[in-house]
Amino acid sequence: MRMDERKADELRPISIEINYLHHPEGSVLISIGNTKVICTASLEDRVPPFLRGQGKGWITAEYSMLPRATEQRNMRESTRGKVSGRTMEIQRLIGRALRSIIDLDKIGERTVWIDCDVIQADGGTRTTSITGAFVALSLAMEKALANGAIQEWPIDDFLAAVSVGIDPKLGAILDLCYAEDAQAEVDMNVVMTGKGEYVELQGTGEEATFSHNQLLTILALADKGIKQLIEEQRNALGAIANRVDEAKQKKKEQSEA
Amino acid sequence: MRMDERKADELRPISIEINYLHHPEGSVLISIGNTKVICTASLEDRVPPFLRGQGKGWITAEYSMLPRATEQRNMRESTRGKVSGRTMEIQRLIGRALRSIIDLDKIGERTVWIDCDVIQADGGTRTTSITGAFVALSLAMEKALANGAIQEWPIDDFLAAVSVGIDPKLGAILDLCYAEDAQAEVDMNVVMTGKGEYVELQGTGEEATFSHNQLLTILALADKGIKQLIEEQRNALGAIANRVDEAKQKKKEQSEA
Amino acid sequence: MRMDERKADELRPISIEINYLHHPEGSVLISIGNTKVICTASLEDRVPPFLRGQGKGWITAEYSMLPRATEQRNMRESTRGKVSGRTMEIQRLIGRALRSIIDLDKIGERTVWIDCDVIQADGGTRTTSITGAFVALSLAMEKALANGAIQEWPIDDFLAAVSVGIDPKLGAILDLCYAEDAQAEVDMNVVMTGKGEYVELQGTGEEATFSHNQLLTILALADKGIKQLIEEQRNALGAIANRVDEAKQKKKEQSEA
Amino acid sequence: MRMDERKADELRPISIEINYLHHPEGSVLISIGNTKVICTASLEDRVPPFLRGQGKGWITAEYSMLPRATEQRNMRESTRGKVSGRTMEIQRLIGRALRSIIDLDKIGERTVWIDCDVIQADGGTRTTSITGAFVALSLAMEKALANGAIQEWPIDDFLAAVSVGIDPKLGAILDLCYAEDAQAEVDMNVVMTGKGEYVELQGTGEEATFSHNQLLTILALADKGIKQLIEEQRNALGAIANRVDEAKQKKKEQSEA
Amino acid sequence: MRMDERKADELRPISIEINYLHHPEGSVLISIGNTKVICTASLEDRVPPFLRGQGKGWITAEYSMLPRATEQRNMRESTRGKVSGRTMEIQRLIGRALRSIIDLDKIGERTVWIDCDVIQADGGTRTTSITGAFVALSLAMEKALANGAIQEWPIDDFLAAVSVGIDPKLGAILDLCYAEDAQAEVDMNVVMTGKGEYVELQGTGEEATFSHNQLLTILALADKGIKQLIEEQRNALGAIANRVDEAKQKKKEQSEA
Amino acid sequence: MRMDERKADELRPISIEINYLHHPEGSVLISIGNTKVICTASLEDRVPPFLRGQGKGWITAEYSMLPRATEQRNMRESTRGKVSGRTMEIQRLIGRALRSIIDLDKIGERTVWIDCDVIQADGGTRTTSITGAFVALSLAMEKALANGAIQEWPIDDFLAAVSVGIDPKLGAILDLCYAEDAQAEVDMNVVMTGKGEYVELQGTGEEATFSHNQLLTILALADKGIKQLIEEQRNALGAIANRVDEAKQKKKEQSEA
Repeated sequence: MRMDERKADELRPISIEINYLHHPEGSVLISIGNTKVICTASLEDRVPPFLRGQGKGWITAEYSMLPRATEQRNMRESTRGKVSGRTMEIQRLIGRALRSIIDLDKIGERTVWIDCDVIQADGGTRTTSITGAFVALSLAMEKALANGAIQEWPIDDFLAAVSVGIDPKLGAILDLCYAEDAQAEVDMNVVMTGKGEYVELQGTGEEATFSHNQLLTILALADKGIKQLIEEQRNALGAIANRVDEAKQKKKEQSEA
Repeated sequence: MRMDERKADELRPISIEINYLHHPEGSVLISIGNTKVICTASLEDRVPPFLRGQGKGWITAEYSMLPRATEQRNMRESTRGKVSGRTMEIQRLIGRALRSIIDLDKIGERTVWIDCDVIQADGGTRTTSITGAFVALSLAMEKALANGAIQEWPIDDFLAAVSVGIDPKLGAILDLCYAEDAQAEVDMNVVMTGKGEYVELQGTGEEATFSHNQLLTILALADKGIKQLIEEQRNALGAIANRVDEAKQKKKEQSEA
Repeated sequence: MRMDERKADELRPISIEINYLHHPEGSVLISIGNTKVICTASLEDRVPPFLRGQGKGWITAEYSMLPRATEQRNMRESTRGKVSGRTMEIQRLIGRALRSIIDLDKIGERTVWIDCDVIQADGGTRTTSITGAFVALSLAMEKALANGAIQEWPIDDFLAAVSVGIDPKLGAILDLCYAEDAQAEVDMNVVMTGKGEYVELQGTGEEATFSHNQLLTILALADKGIKQLIEEQRNALGAIANRVDEAKQKKKEQSEA
Repeated sequence: MRMDERKADELRPISIEINYLHHPEGSVLISIGNTKVICTASLEDRVPPFLRGQGKGWITAEYSMLPRATEQRNMRESTRGKVSGRTMEIQRLIGRALRSIIDLDKIGERTVWIDCDVIQADGGTRTTSITGAFVALSLAMEKALANGAIQEWPIDDFLAAVSVGIDPKLGAILDLCYAEDAQAEVDMNVVMTGKGEYVELQGTGEEATFSHNQLLTILALADKGIKQLIEEQRNALGAIANRVDEAKQKKKEQSEA
Repeated sequence: MRMDERKADELRPISIEINYLHHPEGSVLISIGNTKVICTASLEDRVPPFLRGQGKGWITAEYSMLPRATEQRNMRESTRGKVSGRTMEIQRLIGRALRSIIDLDKIGERTVWIDCDVIQADGGTRTTSITGAFVALSLAMEKALANGAIQEWPIDDFLAAVSVGIDPKLGAILDLCYAEDAQAEVDMNVVMTGKGEYVELQGTGEEATFSHNQLLTILALADKGIKQLIEEQRNALGAIANRVDEAKQKKKEQSEA
Repeated sequence: MRMDERKADELRPISIEINYLHHPEGSVLISIGNTKVICTASLEDRVPPFLRGQGKGWITAEYSMLPRATEQRNMRESTRGKVSGRTMEIQRLIGRALRSIIDLDKIGERTVWIDCDVIQADGGTRTTSITGAFVALSLAMEKALANGAIQEWPIDDFLAAVSVGIDPKLGAILDLCYAEDAQAEVDMNVVMTGKGEYVELQGTGEEATFSHNQLLTILALADKGIKQLIEEQRNALGAIANRVDEAKQKKKEQSEA
């Protein structure tokens, strides 16, 4: 039995509060269990130098934790004067993941800045960030469409992320809280689309290894978790979710044609 | 008439949600108008080098804004690799202010880390931070007293802060929102105690000056605002507020004796 | 009796040596008691990005101490790799103060760099810096007028700064030396114009508070000190002082008209 | 047909020159195709703070490229003043991977510093680094055993890494050179042990996704490549390879017992 | 007798492997004794700001050591976040030295980046870097001439560098290895041209001094060593060496005319 | 004829004002022509880690320029966040030079911090710094001897530095001002002792070279200049100069014995 009495394939309670902040084009407060992240999407009317003049946009992400999001207070990265390797890894992951389900040609020469600020951490902060950031990005795109900044809906599939781990006693378990994560031998983060394809797989055995069969079990759990997370995103987005479905359908037809 | 129809001596709506986060010893989400700040107080069992071995504690504060707390996205100070002068000024102010109403001998060789993270900014972020941080500090002290970390209640007066400005048309106005602040000729931040004494006065005329009479008007408005803010702190703290009153009374008796 | 036998409202001896250095457009060596600061004003033919194309100028200040300006040697901020919060606070203050008595439209798209380098410190380094910087700025403006870089005299009032403190035994005292400052319960820095208006008030009670009456006493002392400092600036500037008086008179007439 | 005429499941030519440098405890120059990396293993007689006093060791890795390892010269990270996110990600990966096949209790309170310096880059620099670092680590352990620094052989399995990608035309291909990597839709780095278990899986679809079936194909190619790489490590290590086999056998027996 | 049985005026064995790397326009692996340096020359089609629009080029150099080039592992300068004073001194020296034998007008508005990466250190890394960098630069110029990037051969003399020291027992000795360098009282680095003129003399007596006569002896040894090093450069460059000779001859004729 | 009408072997006017500042153990304001440097010597009761427990001391130097010491204002290195290569080179030189004429065993486990702050620059700032620092160091040692911090006089020779250059028209000239330095083809800095021995020779031909005969002429000029500078140091130090002479004599006798 898991420490919080969940079943092996059970997610923690999820809530997604949209339009949480006043200023950003898109914003949510997402909670998965005790992990809470403010995700915002901000539009800037220019792109990084390597993209200038190509008529296409970019998505870049930043991730941070409040110093006391965690059990022990962490020194701020601004005070330390540099961003940690862990933070860089996470923000690169979030950016890459979101770029996989959007047609960057359709947003013009704009950068979408995704900011994921963890205000409370209890495991799965990077996967929660991706899941929340997808919703914030969708809200920002809806706003951009409404005010004419963009002409065509650019997001062509849902995107969510979840962690799966292997507990030395319980075997594979879905959506680890911090205490479970600390015990797990293997930790896998899976980012998937609504169509059920992988965007990112990051599995690591810290001082441990895992077999092909264990991998297959992990992936099956991830698949189940992602489906449920996308259901929650759909509920939070309401009518905007239809835009994603339509774009997905259109893309499918085009690729079949 | 002010842009949001307030009277010159009227504060914006205030809310203080205590125990907002799970991990910190004390935490609040404070809103004054559209300005929202998460204030936390964290205890660490050691003091900075200059205080070691003296048996007394220290309070230090850090302040930050989410990148999209503001109308335009700001680059993170962690990304920039250094903390701005404005941030340093504010965090030094918050720490000094809180140290004025606490008996540091009573908290032993401990540091209280105050973190003020602005999640939405609409003027008055530094004064809101101080007002909220006082409550978070009180909650942390109550917890420390309850679990025996400290033996005696250390906070001997209330503390709150407010801004007052001089508008070119309206004259002196209390508690400026961002748009008012941008127009004001003079900007004064006042930190006061429950007893009505000043802890900090920071008045500045950017490309302007102010007379002695204007100063007296400003101070009268500040006095009124502070009293109301302390009333809100009192409501938020409930029974803990009594501890402050008792310590204040005791200190008064001692200084009269 | 004060430790150096001054009266409560007595400034330390003042000297202002103008044109102290060869290269800068304006420079002074100012001494107030044992505090000695080299203040220079340098003109640069461009403005910061936020002002470009507006036809107006800017004043920015930097402040530093020689490592052995103080009793104990301080590590250089260049060696440390970053500027301290205290330094940033001071240089922001100096810049703001000087911008209040100059018409930035009259200097064109130019930046005046004010550098205040403390070569010997004995209390009041920030107020001495402001008082000296005013003179250096005036010298630089005179030179700019002489060589045709600017067309009209831009400084329309005198500006000086002084510290006042509250000593636990002596009460309010003017112009604190370092040893007095270390004992003071309240420390107030006041920046005022020749007209007797405030530009900046920064009063702080480190682990202490002060009453409204104490504030009024402090301000009266400051007023007296500032008048005397401006007299010294006037002597140092000689004929250039007349330009300030004329511009002040003209501004007064305009605002009355 | 691949651009260098390899088959889809064919590695590039491999060479491993052991004891390439004079000073390090272990060193190799490994070449896979045109990618060349100097890998060294250095022993230090202390561990990071979080491990002190536990009697066990640590492995940490650093990775860098010569500025002109690449087609275009890259600015040095020392000149830039900070290490990039990509570099941090890679060095964290190398360290984690190596820690999975060593019993850190057997090396005592020592840190093994792994340095991977890419002198020529043509794709696969991180996987080549891991494959070479394993050999350098083994050489350093042999030396430590010989001179009595450690008492028991600590490495209990082989470890190698390889990249697999999905080319838009050719499908899944093994061991991508730089030009192939630039075209690939999916890029997977796989770190595996001699026993055939996964240590790390990092698969990413930059602006693309991949299906479960594609994943299975990728993993099969990786498995084949890893086996061959381990064969090369075995040849390079000569008699030292036996130590690994014996430790692996012993560990297997223990886990079966 | 010297520790490696060399005579006082004897260089260590020298090898220069040209075109050592694939990507750079010019590259060598130079070994002098156990000191090994990879020197590369890279062309960039722009110059630093202070040279723009003048139609002439620039040479700039960077120097680094692999962490384990030395007996003890050194922390990377990228990890440390800044380049040491020693490194800066050396890279400034290398750049200045190379600029003395090239006609920068002949390379157009281009920067040649010289990178000297020490992979194994045993004394004389800066002089070895200069000696190797000259060859890499020549190779890059040959390539630039061949592909039409430049029109005229720009290098008009050979350039090499050597160290000479004064050993407390043996007196003046040429080309110190690390152990000799550690004992030497005086350390002189001499950079000379093929014509026998000095480009740089850097002599230092760490906690010691040296007389005029000792200086003359040192310079005589340096002269002998440089001649032999240039012979090695000549051999490594083959036909390209003729270009240098011709340009030298032409320059001589011009200065005599 | 030189631009300021000096003869080729003539120094600029020199003044050395001792005890220029209040706090440091030793301080001077040295002027050579228009170059003015404040040199201070500060004692700290500990040594760098590499010297701990050996009972001997250390001398370390820092060098800086006021931003407006020069014709054009330079950005502060503290603002830039790092010390330039030029500054590092100079401060390493000053420290090395001073360590050559002092017996570090005689100052105990102490560091002497030498600070050279250029307040006005007109060529020769590094040589002026060394010449002034020698006097500041001597004053600090006298004070340390007087208050019993050290038992025996540690400085056993005079030390001064001068620049010599080769002007394209005038040939070798002594003590270059900035305008001469900008034109010179060769720039040599020479640090010598009272005994006439070299401590440092740094000669550089930026985009030029120099012959053995030119070197001999340069050294003869340096010798003459140094003698005169030491005469000035002797005058400034008064009776303290005798201590140096006695220690020099004693050292000579010991080395002859």
